[in-house]
Amino acid sequence: MGENNPQTPNVPFEGPACPLPLQHQDKIVLGHGSGGRMTHELIQRVFQSRLLGPELAAGDDYASLLLPSVGRNMGKLAVSTDSHVVSPLFFPGGDIGRLAVCGTVNDVAMSGGTPLFLTCGFILEEGLSVEVLDRVLASMQEAAEEAHVRFVAGDTKVVEKGKVDGLFINTTGFGWIPEGRSIHGANAKPGDVVLVSGSMGDHGMAVLSARGELGFSSVIRSDVAPLNGLIQTLLKAAPDVHVLRDPTRGGLATTLNEIALQSQVGIQIDEAAVPINPAVQSACEMLGFDPLYIANEGKLVVIVPPEEADEALRAMRQCRYGENATRIGVVTAGHPGRVIVRTLVGSTRILDMLAGEILPRIC
Amino acid sequence: MGENNPQTPNVPFEGPACPLPLQHQDKIVLGHGSGGRMTHELIQRVFQSRLLGPELAAGDDYASLLLPSVGRNMGKLAVSTDSHVVSPLFFPGGDIGRLAVCGTVNDVAMSGGTPLFLTCGFILEEGLSVEVLDRVLASMQEAAEEAHVRFVAGDTKVVEKGKVDGLFINTTGFGWIPEGRSIHGANAKPGDVVLVSGSMGDHGMAVLSARGELGFSSVIRSDVAPLNGLIQTLLKAAPDVHVLRDPTRGGLATTLNEIALQSQVGIQIDEAAVPINPAVQSACEMLGFDPLYIANEGKLVVIVPPEEADEALRAMRQCRYGENATRIGVVTAGHPGRVIVRTLVGSTRILDMLAGEILPRIC
Repeated sequence: MGENNPQTPNVPFEGPACPLPLQHQDKIVLGHGSGGRMTHELIQRVFQSRLLGPELAAGDDYASLLLPSVGRNMGKLAVSTDSHVVSPLFFPGGDIGRLAVCGTVNDVAMSGGTPLFLTCGFILEEGLSVEVLDRVLASMQEAAEEAHVRFVAGDTKVVEKGKVDGLFINTTGFGWIPEGRSIHGANAKPGDVVLVSGSMGDHGMAVLSARGELGFSSVIRSDVAPLNGLIQTLLKAAPDVHVLRDPTRGGLATTLNEIALQSQVGIQIDEAAVPINPAVQSACEMLGFDPLYIANEGKLVVIVPPEEADEALRAMRQCRYGENATRIGVVTAGHPGRVIVRTLVGSTRILDMLAGEILPRIC
Repeated sequence: MGENNPQTPNVPFEGPACPLPLQHQDKIVLGHGSGGRMTHELIQRVFQSRLLGPELAAGDDYASLLLPSVGRNMGKLAVSTDSHVVSPLFFPGGDIGRLAVCGTVNDVAMSGGTPLFLTCGFILEEGLSVEVLDRVLASMQEAAEEAHVRFVAGDTKVVEKGKVDGLFINTTGFGWIPEGRSIHGANAKPGDVVLVSGSMGDHGMAVLSARGELGFSSVIRSDVAPLNGLIQTLLKAAPDVHVLRDPTRGGLATTLNEIALQSQVGIQIDEAAVPINPAVQSACEMLGFDPLYIANEGKLVVIVPPEEADEALRAMRQCRYGENATRIGVVTAGHPGRVIVRTLVGSTRILDMLAGEILPRIC
């Protein structure tokens, strides 16, 4: 997309000559956050070899970006930000880098718009190995390519050993919402149908398993994935979608409660209809967790008028990240602000928002 | 600026009722980062009472923003990101909140455009007092009002005690660059004049003094301030400014080296002409620091064609943050990529980029 940006000088910022290139076995030291020669070396040798793009190479304090609106159609900017502190950095199915890209891409995509650009802010612990940083950056670039977004600005800070846990990443994302699209948590209407794009709880249980806290070996993999392709396919088939939201921290239960409150509607779901992988179900039963409160990082809640529900499901099921999309409930005029679940044994109960914290540092 | 954004529902996101409102004497706990009820309580009771704006109140995963370009003039988006890890959180003249707003506003303003929006990502340490967080948020809101920007999206994570040092903040900023404006580090030309907006080294030495590392009491205050007003006044008087940059980490010496490299020009400055507060000068002499390498957070380097230099100085001196603006040197065709300083005793020496790290966690 470099051609969008004719005024950005497209010459790499070479910086001073580095007599000793950084090696994978090297460690991050405080000087890498100084803003001086060592910071430039880290940016050139490590960051710029992974996170590609003409704005990063230009070496200015800011990126200048031509937007789809200019001189053409109308629309709005969609913006979202997330800091990522997941522990451990690597887990089955993903790592902090893939999570940082997908988490922010997905939040922007929940507008129904097209994610375009990302910024990244790194806080590194003194002593972190360059090899670990490089693996995270490679994963970020791979996820950015999959999501068709590019990095346009970045920042790196280094803090003393023990003052941060390895590596934290902030990603801020922005995209373009075409004129006339209005998808918000406040738009759910009685009679609407509630869909999910697939199984619930995989990400949270995968991170828990990577911490060795399950107490048994498991095959659970995180679902962390960019959902913007799925959403574009969905919106072509069902252009009148009312709400899109990804059920991350707090899980499906918390997300549905947020929507019920914002829209002042009731939501009724059928517990038996919520797809849950058998390994996640077993692990949750052993640990006493409810999978409806466990975080997802590649799943979508869709609230859609009933006349578009079948088309929406058909479209999602054609997509890699929506194969197991299914209908789980309806929006009601009764009990506004509440989520009611019909349990497996046929009774009903109120499904509240997550109260305390069950899995810290899940994202 | 809420009228820019007619499609965002302007109803506060009320969330669930909170039986026990958060008090100043309370501490942050892991549940405040859960994404569930306690996170909503923290956002409502603490964040939303300080960081105001219709997008934050809407409670969606993203903010949707109408831009100045749409249906009107042409232009480009300016974007910059910074993570802030300054220690201690409060120092003479400022705090991490004011720093987080001004640092990012200033980077966006270096495009010559108008900063408009900020996002904020907080990483909080378990046990942080709500009172400290609230003081930081109040300072952020005050700085945002001074800079005429507003917060449009936010995120909060909480990590276990000892896994982060109190409070880190990422701010990402967005602004608008009008059509035809092109201010870049690569634009310096031989014959241009080098100006600074005021004294060098105040921020770095103020933070050092707050750490008690000076070994003596001092009156040094940080210069942390938003520079977008100064820059707009400057550009009205001197519309052909070639380069704007704020000499933060690495100080004036590093910033001038970056520009010399990006533009492939030489820069020659006169050490006697660089304004330095006497208290900063004394502290630097006692500690063996060169003030040209000490960070600033409210100062500007301006590179301007000679015919506009006098007007540029006059305009800057009218502004609160440019009263002591002065000419410090010239851009040369000779010694491209190098900065040469004429010393106080009349000799010349090469002024290199900052090599190691002298003051970690200065921003």
